[in-house]
Amino acid sequence: MVLKVSKRGQVQPFLVMDVMRAAEDLEQAGASVVHLEVGQPSLGVPEAVIRQLEDKIKQSALGYTVASGLRELKQGIAKHYTDSYGVDVAPDSIVVTTGSSAGFQLAFLAAFDAGDRVAMASPGYPAYRHILESLSLDAVLIEAGADTRFQVSVEHLQALDAPIDGLILASPSNPTGTMVTAGQFNDIADYCETNGIRLISDEIYHGITFGNAEATGAQRPDVIVVNSFSKYFCMTGWRVGWLIVPPDLRRSIECLAQNHYISPPTISQWAATYALQTKDVMDERVRGYDENRHILLEGLTQAGFGQFAPSDGAFYLYCDVGAHTGDSLAFCASILEDAHVAITPGVDFDPIHGRNFVRLSFAGSTDDMKEATERLSHWIADHRK
Amino acid sequence: MVLKVSKRGQVQPFLVMDVMRAAEDLEQAGASVVHLEVGQPSLGVPEAVIRQLEDKIKQSALGYTVASGLRELKQGIAKHYTDSYGVDVAPDSIVVTTGSSAGFQLAFLAAFDAGDRVAMASPGYPAYRHILESLSLDAVLIEAGADTRFQVSVEHLQALDAPIDGLILASPSNPTGTMVTAGQFNDIADYCETNGIRLISDEIYHGITFGNAEATGAQRPDVIVVNSFSKYFCMTGWRVGWLIVPPDLRRSIECLAQNHYISPPTISQWAATYALQTKDVMDERVRGYDENRHILLEGLTQAGFGQFAPSDGAFYLYCDVGAHTGDSLAFCASILEDAHVAITPGVDFDPIHGRNFVRLSFAGSTDDMKEATERLSHWIADHRK
Repeated sequence: MVLKVSKRGQVQPFLVMDVMRAAEDLEQAGASVVHLEVGQPSLGVPEAVIRQLEDKIKQSALGYTVASGLRELKQGIAKHYTDSYGVDVAPDSIVVTTGSSAGFQLAFLAAFDAGDRVAMASPGYPAYRHILESLSLDAVLIEAGADTRFQVSVEHLQALDAPIDGLILASPSNPTGTMVTAGQFNDIADYCETNGIRLISDEIYHGITFGNAEATGAQRPDVIVVNSFSKYFCMTGWRVGWLIVPPDLRRSIECLAQNHYISPPTISQWAATYALQTKDVMDERVRGYDENRHILLEGLTQAGFGQFAPSDGAFYLYCDVGAHTGDSLAFCASILEDAHVAITPGVDFDPIHGRNFVRLSFAGSTDDMKEATERLSHWIADHRK
Repeated sequence: MVLKVSKRGQVQPFLVMDVMRAAEDLEQAGASVVHLEVGQPSLGVPEAVIRQLEDKIKQSALGYTVASGLRELKQGIAKHYTDSYGVDVAPDSIVVTTGSSAGFQLAFLAAFDAGDRVAMASPGYPAYRHILESLSLDAVLIEAGADTRFQVSVEHLQALDAPIDGLILASPSNPTGTMVTAGQFNDIADYCETNGIRLISDEIYHGITFGNAEATGAQRPDVIVVNSFSKYFCMTGWRVGWLIVPPDLRRSIECLAQNHYISPPTISQWAATYALQTKDVMDERVRGYDENRHILLEGLTQAGFGQFAPSDGAFYLYCDVGAHTGDSLAFCASILEDAHVAITPGVDFDPIHGRNFVRLSFAGSTDDMKEATERLSHWIADHRK
């Protein structure tokens, strides 16, 4: 008898994976590819973290921790809020997670029942809607364009034709890098509170900003904050992040975490504990991203590559290339094939207008950014002829 | 406005966590507690793994891997099937997961839609039913007693009053340690194949057996195999396991893994790759568990502690203490309080008959087993007066 395959499991892949595979094929054939497609820093944790970790590995069997994570790490994260935001966060409200991926899943399961509607800006991080759909939740895409810096506004929420149960807000956003101001954040949070909408604040790019201060949901009692060590602390592959959990969801999230994860990886929790001491190194790296950003922005604007979204933070440039193409997937494939620069098509992030956009990551080295700028400038010059 | 809390997120906690907390309180007050409640080995990975890992950390930024895991690790796992079972498993059918916890979640999401019915033996691992319920799936408990070694039989399946979509089979089982024979495994798998039931074979205690050979689902094309490095390879806190995925579910599980996990922890994947070379050390540890098992079984049987399930494998003894109590939670609390031995109440594993059962883990040191046997024997002698 043929066995059933679920409908809920038919989620879309990340198209960026296809770009990565094609880039790998080119490299295997001897080409030198510049990588602007991957959303991760090229540098890992500093030497000091590794040294402390080596000592820890020798002393400990690294068994399970409690589901909500190591006490030392939760205390360290609480201190991070005092130091970086001037906000008091109780260690008991923090749940360490297996990356922000686990954080989203726990938040969605604890706050929403099957059939509930959760809204988010489009363009946005594609896993939001894919995770929601696989959990039998409805992802409501809010078309957010250049006029609102690709962010959701209160006006958007007021204009929805049916009530929503939740809202995901990401500032800085992936793929656009745009941010909301503290005033906008509070307006949206107030609207959610008044209308019974659970606000989930994705803060995983906090720390990587170029002048503007980040508003955090940590100062509001109803908001679920999702954060991670992946981006600012350069720990993508370690899979460790955290939630700040409102009191009404704490027991539920603790029990869900016990059952769905047992505990986050113990060695990664120790690495994160030590990484909290390396913010000087990370701030220096953010200055490097800023330099990279300027190189790409200035070079590519001059070359007429496209219209860039305001890159307030994160390490992405989101670019309207609609003057050149209405098929960003083919556009990225051509650039990879001809110029050996890997960039990501907007269709991954925006099912509505993504065919006119591409995302470039500037998390790599400054030399790579210079080389990419040159190659892309030549390619677009040839292409416009 | 008061915000909603989901119904699906109201899963039960592990009661063993309460035991652990109470044990910790006693220890803080100066008591020496013997721990037989935790399902994890007291020893970690061998020195050789740590040395290789230290080299790897120095060479690599430890970024994301592809969602299905490191090629080296998948090849190593495939070789493990050749060496240990004489079964050919294609590396492409293997998906490395963030512990077996992620494996179950991916399997459930890929194979079942909301409302589908998935059966399992009771007693069994409580997270099965808790994960299922939080994903809007129905957990169907099959009352499995001493007459079938606490395992599901074909007769059980034939006697169900409504069709099921899936079946979880765990051999060796947690909490009982009992196994099915190769013949029983095949009968159940045949029945599932004929009746359109997706069989999920939980094999995380494979390798920890005391004389009987393990039947693996890896030799059958329709079965989803779930395994982990946590138990036999003593890597609980590293959170790394694997699935063997039938062809019809591969694309779905790959895309779900990309969205729900991005990738398993990279450092843990390397540790697992190296750990595959340490089976000699692990087999020696299994001989130690066997010694522990004999100490407890003989001592406690003599003391009249209760009726033990046949402990074919894993590192658990499941004991019918119904002659002493009808409230295993209170029974365990008294033993902890009086004798300072931490054991787990059966109610965690069996909502039907768990009030008459307790689980003892013999994954600890041999000295601890001797001490526990002495304390429990004295306690039960006092208690029977």
